[in-house]
Amino acid sequence: MAFVNENHLKLPGNYLFAEIGKKVAAFKEQNPDADIIRLGIGDVTRPLPMACIDAMHKAVDDMSRLETFKGYPEYEGYDFLINKIKEADYKKRGIDIGSDEIFVSDGAKSDTANIQELFGLNCRIAVTDPVYPVYVDSNVMAGRTGEYKDGKWSNVTYLPCTSENNFVPELPKERVDLIYLCLPNNPTGTTLTKDQLKVWVDYAAKNKSIILFDSAYEAFISQENVPHSIYEIDGAKDVAIEFRSFSKTAGFTGTRCAYIVIPKELKAFTARGEEVGLNRLWYRRQATKFNGVSYIVQRGAEAVYSEEGQKQVKDTIAYYLTNASIIKSGLESIGIQVYGGVNAPYIWMKTPNGMDSWVFFDKLLNEANIVGTPGVGFGPSGQGYFRLTAFGSIENTKAAVERFKTRLKV
Amino acid sequence: MAFVNENHLKLPGNYLFAEIGKKVAAFKEQNPDADIIRLGIGDVTRPLPMACIDAMHKAVDDMSRLETFKGYPEYEGYDFLINKIKEADYKKRGIDIGSDEIFVSDGAKSDTANIQELFGLNCRIAVTDPVYPVYVDSNVMAGRTGEYKDGKWSNVTYLPCTSENNFVPELPKERVDLIYLCLPNNPTGTTLTKDQLKVWVDYAAKNKSIILFDSAYEAFISQENVPHSIYEIDGAKDVAIEFRSFSKTAGFTGTRCAYIVIPKELKAFTARGEEVGLNRLWYRRQATKFNGVSYIVQRGAEAVYSEEGQKQVKDTIAYYLTNASIIKSGLESIGIQVYGGVNAPYIWMKTPNGMDSWVFFDKLLNEANIVGTPGVGFGPSGQGYFRLTAFGSIENTKAAVERFKTRLKV
Repeated sequence: MAFVNENHLKLPGNYLFAEIGKKVAAFKEQNPDADIIRLGIGDVTRPLPMACIDAMHKAVDDMSRLETFKGYPEYEGYDFLINKIKEADYKKRGIDIGSDEIFVSDGAKSDTANIQELFGLNCRIAVTDPVYPVYVDSNVMAGRTGEYKDGKWSNVTYLPCTSENNFVPELPKERVDLIYLCLPNNPTGTTLTKDQLKVWVDYAAKNKSIILFDSAYEAFISQENVPHSIYEIDGAKDVAIEFRSFSKTAGFTGTRCAYIVIPKELKAFTARGEEVGLNRLWYRRQATKFNGVSYIVQRGAEAVYSEEGQKQVKDTIAYYLTNASIIKSGLESIGIQVYGGVNAPYIWMKTPNGMDSWVFFDKLLNEANIVGTPGVGFGPSGQGYFRLTAFGSIENTKAAVERFKTRLKV
Repeated sequence: MAFVNENHLKLPGNYLFAEIGKKVAAFKEQNPDADIIRLGIGDVTRPLPMACIDAMHKAVDDMSRLETFKGYPEYEGYDFLINKIKEADYKKRGIDIGSDEIFVSDGAKSDTANIQELFGLNCRIAVTDPVYPVYVDSNVMAGRTGEYKDGKWSNVTYLPCTSENNFVPELPKERVDLIYLCLPNNPTGTTLTKDQLKVWVDYAAKNKSIILFDSAYEAFISQENVPHSIYEIDGAKDVAIEFRSFSKTAGFTGTRCAYIVIPKELKAFTARGEEVGLNRLWYRRQATKFNGVSYIVQRGAEAVYSEEGQKQVKDTIAYYLTNASIIKSGLESIGIQVYGGVNAPYIWMKTPNGMDSWVFFDKLLNEANIVGTPGVGFGPSGQGYFRLTAFGSIENTKAAVERFKTRLKV
């Protein structure tokens, strides 16, 4: 008899964005003429940089000729891409990362969901709260969490990040083994300074914990003293895995490319206390369960690092950050408390009068035909908050702010 | 303290093809002038069908324009592709599969490795022996196997497929819950008839087992009465998941696209005996851990089903099958016993004088500069066998056969 993995059955309902998609579809069916503005799922809307387009055309042509055709890619990614990542994202910032410490993948979601496979089921995870649901859900599926009650899992350490602590998480009171940090943060749009991040690197070193550092939004950093990579912090190579993505940097959400950095120094431990290097363990994991990223897509990602690509990426990021600033100042002008939106494409707003996040979701959809994301969908400390994204067009962003001002009955 | 998943440490050495890659690289370094012919890893060499090239150029252009730009794909794949799969691969063969029973992915390797996540760790797996290593290794990593000894894992049921039983596996003597069948088979290149496959469907129905049916090589079937899909067998929708790939069908090993079929009828069971539908469970798994396949790639896969695409695919398959027949008849002419190569791109040969598979690998590489795959790398019953692939150029294939005849010192 085929038994099911009952850990999967613990997950309540749908994945957050699947749930939102369903609600919006239902609303649309009942209101076919409604002009919906989507500031919900963190999906980009601007076209790919022309440098990437040109590179992918060339790569498609490579696949049409016997001499240049490519079969299976390297499990860890093509050297042409890895070397660009190494130079531009690390060496230029004074960080020494080896080519064999970088693994290209089809997305940061896959990487952040799969990374837990390397660790024992007895590891206790800590997540900031609110948090990107994938970190927690992937651990639920693996059986690393207890039961779900009042929006929280037992056996998980939640680190509240709210306006009360200025979105700076406190060190956990109990021992934790794996710490997920996303900075700049999804969903709050807030960041930590280098000194604030150093506190976590030191904690991990002292406790032999590992930090899983998701910097998918690194390209949006506009202020000084905000670390672009955790490896800017002394000692981080001994304690941290870093996740990066081309999704938000270069509009690759529909093209699919990301990478993960696992330094060779990084170790986990057997029950008997023996050290095990995680870099080779990940290589073995990828070689067994993954066959690499499309050649065409990797050529597109490589072009992000060209002079032309870098300029085009910066223009797009600036476009989205302008949207963020329009939302931020627009909402502030009507007395809504907002956070983020400076080093990130996310605006984290307090719901009017502390309204329940899902109630506000329905209200905003019904009255203003705007789709956002309920803060509580990211964890219990997100209750009373709501996430808006800056990934729309500037016209829609302005229209959304106008609707907030004129159509929302507060 | 971050504990490691010690199941990963049980895996002996490298993934088979990573190991072969290393050996070949070492040989090349010592023999830089050797003209190596690669008939090892099952990787295609012919360019993509022009229909796919044209479609991907168009898709790349879509990504360059605001109006046609695509962000996150659907987790399960785009309708334009799913509907083509449904029609051409199933409906045309009289099989009724729903759009929501098909899930597009980046590769059959990912799918066949990830599918075990849906099942309890107490499920016993059965694999034909020899077998594609991913089935077993992914279960090792999850902790579903015992210890490795003499090339076998405890807690795994091996179903020998050798010349003695004409490569038709016998039903297991002990109860098994998950049965991996790959047909046409990798590595042996052999198949089962519909009646022979029906025996397995009936076994699964009787024992509430699930068959994980990998038909990645379906496009190579040239004989009648060989099932293209397990769903051609009555009752299979209640007991089987099917894996398909564009890798071998249309040369997508470097482009990356595959799909999986999970009928809604298919159930696994909780410890208390409650039924759980696997279709929705897989959707939730994919929505949580995967962000879909590149739009550009899915457009390429769609074009496989166009009239032009179908013709080009058939030409390429015919090219490889000609190679297979050249190897088969060439080796037979010098007294080597060979199997497969008729409904599959693989030739499974007996090593001369029952030589150890890895010894023959070294011998063939050293004397004839040909890379193949040692049969024992696919499981203990592969000892004394060796796999050659038909994916080279016809010139290299002929040259390889010539080297077998003239350079191999038997």
